[in-house]
Amino acid sequence: MANGAHALIQTLVNAGVDTCFTNPGTSEMHFVAALDDADMRGVLSDGYARMADKPAATLLHLGCGLGNALANLHNARKARVPMVNIIGDHATYHTQYDAQLQSDIETVAKNISKWIKTTPKTSQLAADAAEAVAVAKGPPAQIATLILPADVSWNDGAEPAQAHVPAQPPPASDATVRALADVIKKSGKKVAFLLGNRVLREPGLRAASQIAEKSGAKLFCEVFPTRLERGEGLPSVERIAYLAELASVQLDGYDHLILVDAKAPVSFFAYPGKKSYLVPDDCTAHALVQPHEDALASLRNLVEAVGASDTTPNLQSAARPALPKGKLNASKACQAIGALLPPNAIISDEAQTSGIKLPAFTAGAPRHDVLTLTGGAIGQGLPVALGAATACPDRPVLALVGDGSAMYTVQALWTIAREGLNVTTVIFNNRSYGILNIELERVGAEKIGPEAKAQLDLSEPAIDFVSIAQGMGVPARRVARAEDFSAALKDAFASRGPFLIDAIVPSEYEGLKLKALPHMLSALGSVPSPVAKAIKKKIAP
Amino acid sequence: MANGAHALIQTLVNAGVDTCFTNPGTSEMHFVAALDDADMRGVLSDGYARMADKPAATLLHLGCGLGNALANLHNARKARVPMVNIIGDHATYHTQYDAQLQSDIETVAKNISKWIKTTPKTSQLAADAAEAVAVAKGPPAQIATLILPADVSWNDGAEPAQAHVPAQPPPASDATVRALADVIKKSGKKVAFLLGNRVLREPGLRAASQIAEKSGAKLFCEVFPTRLERGEGLPSVERIAYLAELASVQLDGYDHLILVDAKAPVSFFAYPGKKSYLVPDDCTAHALVQPHEDALASLRNLVEAVGASDTTPNLQSAARPALPKGKLNASKACQAIGALLPPNAIISDEAQTSGIKLPAFTAGAPRHDVLTLTGGAIGQGLPVALGAATACPDRPVLALVGDGSAMYTVQALWTIAREGLNVTTVIFNNRSYGILNIELERVGAEKIGPEAKAQLDLSEPAIDFVSIAQGMGVPARRVARAEDFSAALKDAFASRGPFLIDAIVPSEYEGLKLKALPHMLSALGSVPSPVAKAIKKKIAP
Repeated sequence: MANGAHALIQTLVNAGVDTCFTNPGTSEMHFVAALDDADMRGVLSDGYARMADKPAATLLHLGCGLGNALANLHNARKARVPMVNIIGDHATYHTQYDAQLQSDIETVAKNISKWIKTTPKTSQLAADAAEAVAVAKGPPAQIATLILPADVSWNDGAEPAQAHVPAQPPPASDATVRALADVIKKSGKKVAFLLGNRVLREPGLRAASQIAEKSGAKLFCEVFPTRLERGEGLPSVERIAYLAELASVQLDGYDHLILVDAKAPVSFFAYPGKKSYLVPDDCTAHALVQPHEDALASLRNLVEAVGASDTTPNLQSAARPALPKGKLNASKACQAIGALLPPNAIISDEAQTSGIKLPAFTAGAPRHDVLTLTGGAIGQGLPVALGAATACPDRPVLALVGDGSAMYTVQALWTIAREGLNVTTVIFNNRSYGILNIELERVGAEKIGPEAKAQLDLSEPAIDFVSIAQGMGVPARRVARAEDFSAALKDAFASRGPFLIDAIVPSEYEGLKLKALPHMLSALGSVPSPVAKAIKKKIAP
Repeated sequence: MANGAHALIQTLVNAGVDTCFTNPGTSEMHFVAALDDADMRGVLSDGYARMADKPAATLLHLGCGLGNALANLHNARKARVPMVNIIGDHATYHTQYDAQLQSDIETVAKNISKWIKTTPKTSQLAADAAEAVAVAKGPPAQIATLILPADVSWNDGAEPAQAHVPAQPPPASDATVRALADVIKKSGKKVAFLLGNRVLREPGLRAASQIAEKSGAKLFCEVFPTRLERGEGLPSVERIAYLAELASVQLDGYDHLILVDAKAPVSFFAYPGKKSYLVPDDCTAHALVQPHEDALASLRNLVEAVGASDTTPNLQSAARPALPKGKLNASKACQAIGALLPPNAIISDEAQTSGIKLPAFTAGAPRHDVLTLTGGAIGQGLPVALGAATACPDRPVLALVGDGSAMYTVQALWTIAREGLNVTTVIFNNRSYGILNIELERVGAEKIGPEAKAQLDLSEPAIDFVSIAQGMGVPARRVARAEDFSAALKDAFASRGPFLIDAIVPSEYEGLKLKALPHMLSALGSVPSPVAKAIKKKIAP
């Protein structure tokens, strides 16, 4: 017999959960003490599941520790990844006293987790932990939250439990597949696919490309993919744009939109007088799979049903941009990344306004994964990079983060240094909440005064990310010229371990008027010129 | 007629809420744009209400922005201060689409706020805002949360509302006051008071001291006061200790404990085999006032009932320790603070294990306020200092923060620099979660291995707070000798504006065994030696 903490950890390890991101307090001390008795790795901090395809555990300190993690757990929920939260609570008999840290943990957890359980006694802990892992793995993958009272952890009387046998998800029904195959055969180029989550890896992309090549259908990818495999040798898909004004133009002209593990696209926010639901009125949306079904198997069945089994997918050929020169800007930084990205890299992309050109410049780079801001809660770029590097210690990780976003979770740099993770961080330091300067205008807020502007400005005082990074043990360099940026990037990729580049770039949107956006995007090469013209006509007639 | 955002801000200003701590996103852009039209001050960030005795507003971005603020809102709830949260939400018609940032804001808010309202239409917004401020002001003071859909904010059709007329809280009933006066008259030195929240300012302390002088009753202060006025010329009260082992000794021997706006003391956490409720078995706890009653008026009625109206309170005389010499440690840093604290200072105390000697060394310093970690959610020290400095721009603010705590909200340094706030920050940099090294042993966790120890260690890599502070625009200096610490403190107090001292101190508890604690505390001078002996007998027989 073991105490609860030991049985819990052994149960997690039995179920394949061997990594725990911890930020413990007193109520979790028995769990912490038990870490040494099992083959479990403890690191202080989130993003692991996207790359490892299995859950990591988190160890959090009561409702307030959960609160501190809530924004990134929201992103994880929207990313539909598996995760097991272990949340320490007061001893069962202590809650009646409403001590300082007492709060309603289950209520807070409801926002990020449907499966929530408070284990009432030690003998039940291992069974609850095994169930938590099974629920987290799904299908569908999700966050399971196990609340662990301190006495349940410290008391004896527990045995580790074996892992549940994983469930095998069914594919979409034959009727659904046949019906969609008919739509594709009949409507051809008037059909677009919106690919999400589980079909954005090589097997799903190849299957989708076979259908596209056979039928002339268009392939889109959801606006903020959990994990997108792309680059040389993989089929290329066009991401739906963040700006609803652009997204509605991308989707114009299609009669059918087939959703594969993705939701019908909606505007990120509502704007006065603009549509929230972005599927055109005369376009029908169809879902190939439900969340509990096997997305890849369903897509492969569709390949067969449209007779594309022998069709060759359209694979991206190698293509690198030239190295940029002169004064650095966000576009040139993206160009240099396209020119220098090492093979097999993982990009954690929270570059916000500064990353608009990244997809174009890296399209033909060596094969890589892109992890994005799935839930819109900024401050995800560094933690996701940290988690990805923990899951894939042999792959180079590149975190691209706006200066505003970076400040939310800048502490992750210390954990990256502590764990010696191979993460190169680029801060796009334009000294403003660039995106909010646009949003202020998009919502139709008029007469923008100095007090409002000051809320979006990060230049007083300017933030020195080199100094901050070095203070947390991460070597760093500031660059303001394209040549220096490329040199820093080369150096960072040439050696293992953490490195940060503080890239001083002008705000891309200084003084931007929304009606100039299509022209600017077109000039940047993000959208083809006819699209820009169409947008211009729509939003600035 | 105005749009919702303008009417909201004018309503807040009408009700005396003229300060807003903002961290906005797209859904709050109309509020941000409206800031310039009203006489309201916008600063990016919490702690204001403790010093201003009126609510500030916060402006937060949906459920995730609320999540990021949740730990410090928990501390604010436990501090029982007034506060109005304005939380931007998606437009009413947009929530059906479950866009990226969609979450259940009301559920998250339940943890920190009983009054929660989502305003459904623009014409109702000003009335809701006026109600929110009235509820926040109380009595009892509390957090009111107003959820503001974006379209309710941007639509026209609102008029600012006038502030509610404040409620006048009643005093405790005459029967209660008479009954407690009888207890005091009968039991004299066997009576102890536990003073909290609203009676820890000069008027409450003087009244309590009159009773103590008259009757021989003992005065205690709750373990984590929201705001305690102390120093030369004020009655001195003994704070209940954080360690339950010490607190139970402090309370030993009293037959009656009279609670004045304080809760009966309980252990911060439960520990195996130790009591959670710290009032001795043979001691009766009595509450003088209920939360909705006037605590100060009730205490003054008690003064009269015990016949102490003409009794002179016992006031602390001026006393400063000598300046310390030699290698710096936490105790010497507290000594130097006692020697150099300027008049009228505000201390935000999150020094944790490093601050044990602070109360003794500052007891006879010039009059000052102490703000403490009311809810136990660490990462409060810097934000509370920021809020206090905003409320009291003419007073020097001293933030005392452990290195582990400082990293939770280190971004506050940038806001302090941006606003030019007169905050001197001392980081007690012992490179470990010192308190957790104790807690690991207190919970009875045995066989502490290297993996467990590593979770509590902050030395790999060592954090350079000078570098981090400078990176955020705060001038800073590192010191390792007592003389240098004093010099840095003098310099910081001599000029206005932000300054940070990275005080390198050994961990006070390196290798500590719990049974050595009473001896060590006694040696440090925190508790008188007979008390230490009693504890030793109790916990390490």
